[in-house]
Amino acid sequence: MGPGPSDVSPRVLNALGRSTIGHLDPAFVMLMDETKALLQYAFQTKNSLTLPVSAPGSAGMEACFVNLIEPGDKVIICINGVFGKRMVENVIRCGGEPITIDSPWGQQTSADKLELALKSHQKVKAVAMVHAETSTGVRNDVEQLCAIAKNYDCLTIVDAVTSLGGIEVNVDKWQIDAIYSGSQKCLSCIPGISPVSFSEHAVEIIKQRQHPVQSWFLDMNLIMGYWGEGSRSYHHTAPVNSLYALHEALLILKQEGLQNAWNRHKQLHQKLVAGLAEMGLSMLVEPDARLPQLNTVRVPEGIDEARVRKVLLEEFQLEIGAGLGELSGKVWRIGLMGHGCSQRNVDYCLAALKSVLK
Amino acid sequence: MGPGPSDVSPRVLNALGRSTIGHLDPAFVMLMDETKALLQYAFQTKNSLTLPVSAPGSAGMEACFVNLIEPGDKVIICINGVFGKRMVENVIRCGGEPITIDSPWGQQTSADKLELALKSHQKVKAVAMVHAETSTGVRNDVEQLCAIAKNYDCLTIVDAVTSLGGIEVNVDKWQIDAIYSGSQKCLSCIPGISPVSFSEHAVEIIKQRQHPVQSWFLDMNLIMGYWGEGSRSYHHTAPVNSLYALHEALLILKQEGLQNAWNRHKQLHQKLVAGLAEMGLSMLVEPDARLPQLNTVRVPEGIDEARVRKVLLEEFQLEIGAGLGELSGKVWRIGLMGHGCSQRNVDYCLAALKSVLK
Repeated sequence: MGPGPSDVSPRVLNALGRSTIGHLDPAFVMLMDETKALLQYAFQTKNSLTLPVSAPGSAGMEACFVNLIEPGDKVIICINGVFGKRMVENVIRCGGEPITIDSPWGQQTSADKLELALKSHQKVKAVAMVHAETSTGVRNDVEQLCAIAKNYDCLTIVDAVTSLGGIEVNVDKWQIDAIYSGSQKCLSCIPGISPVSFSEHAVEIIKQRQHPVQSWFLDMNLIMGYWGEGSRSYHHTAPVNSLYALHEALLILKQEGLQNAWNRHKQLHQKLVAGLAEMGLSMLVEPDARLPQLNTVRVPEGIDEARVRKVLLEEFQLEIGAGLGELSGKVWRIGLMGHGCSQRNVDYCLAALKSVLK
Repeated sequence: MGPGPSDVSPRVLNALGRSTIGHLDPAFVMLMDETKALLQYAFQTKNSLTLPVSAPGSAGMEACFVNLIEPGDKVIICINGVFGKRMVENVIRCGGEPITIDSPWGQQTSADKLELALKSHQKVKAVAMVHAETSTGVRNDVEQLCAIAKNYDCLTIVDAVTSLGGIEVNVDKWQIDAIYSGSQKCLSCIPGISPVSFSEHAVEIIKQRQHPVQSWFLDMNLIMGYWGEGSRSYHHTAPVNSLYALHEALLILKQEGLQNAWNRHKQLHQKLVAGLAEMGLSMLVEPDARLPQLNTVRVPEGIDEARVRKVLLEEFQLEIGAGLGELSGKVWRIGLMGHGCSQRNVDYCLAALKSVLK
């Protein structure tokens, strides 16, 4: 019950352990096609460039930036946690010019701030934001922020690592041009794969680049040749077994249904928060901006937070997360993600915390 | 029995399916330390920067180039197959200046050619080469080529994707500064992980770079913080289950012993070649330069090579590889890698081919 990797379901682990077949085997190509369709369902998009990058979420982030950003491009980045800062690093390494909007950790990025930034800078190419800030437990209002960015004709780049499968993500309706997620959060798949999706507009931009994409491994112009229709030209050896697992995890999500999955996360989050409140524990984030899948709980005065986590891990076999960055030592992060988001886990976590804190 | 992914042993698949734990869990950190020691054994190196990159071999290649090469750097690349060409792409995308030495596909890169290139170019920073060219079945003489490069004070970068575990690789003795491999060839692990190792000299170069590494995900300055001694600062979520599998695969290699593994590959390769010769089939590569783990067999005149592969796959459940690039349609590639390199497989492959070709 940390900030991820989340609990992987036995179905996914079973799929993972199937015999490895070739990455160009016709049976594997069928699985690729199904995986693409399942990802389109999860992302709620018709984007044909929707596929899993063969590496963790950080590489998915990099795939979005290195394909869309060229030297000199201005990118507005909404920062209210660790992962916004990582986006700045990505823009710099692409030779781009990051323009940052900073909001306090634990609060949402406000629409006004973005509007102001867009008014005060000319020729901004893209606006980037994190949907679910895993470091703080904040949900940013991606629909609203993307709408504003689109008014100024900007590309929109969204981090959905922790949101996909846990709360609503609607790529087409929200006008998202590039989005990346992770396998190991609310999809409850093993870590190491990053689903991405690019709009038709983004694909045009990628095809018309002035400079080659600086990463050969993440160059979508080449990856399209393997994941696209037709000849399936070899680019790199796909992580076959990890893709068995992702396929199974996405199938589980589809069988439950997106809306049901979101409802489950919301209801169990509310039960967790209520139980924490009974123990006198409070949340970092205001109710409207809270992520159900990532609960940041304030560490009470006088409590050695690292000891609490150690006892939980060693005596209860329960992992919860520490605070990251400026929240280090100040909060715990309790994940309720995918398969791990269950009544049993909420009850167990509350009982264990109560026992350790008493 | 294609060019990889190779057959994964049941032990590795079992390890893969273990419950996912956190990437900062103390038990996982122990597994990381053991994996590092096992990789040092496999690579025959004392290099402390020896670790698995969380992505396929292509990303391991990119990790070597983006960390060592800066804009304007001259790099000599020995090309005699597909993977040498990919190195050129990498150098270009780093802003470096590739100087290529081309040799016919199916032949080794000669020491004389490298010597000549080093004499005719000033200030060459690095020499890059492929140890086992998976596209042609050729073993390049890395020990000799690296010795020449060192005479001219160059860094040496080596692709050992298909060699590691199948033939001798001796990083320290051969003076290799940066090397990458793949999990899915002679290690017989699942695809998706790339072991790498950097010499102390290479680490110094990385630490003293003028420009930041263009890839955040592959920046060794950051990755060292997670894989190095001490605090294990979070960089990205490690592919936990894939690393269970790699650990098990490396343990199997250590239990067999490097020399025994090389002998097994050599002996079964000789049996395969003898059996093919009996059927009138000949090899593309001269005996001295052949890779035991990747056998390129000339397609006889008048044979529809794609049909042969299709029948083998559908009726015999046996995959062998097609020719790549300029060898497309001209050769088959038969892999004898790791767990798949067995007497049973050699016999079965010969019998199946005989049946299809008669």
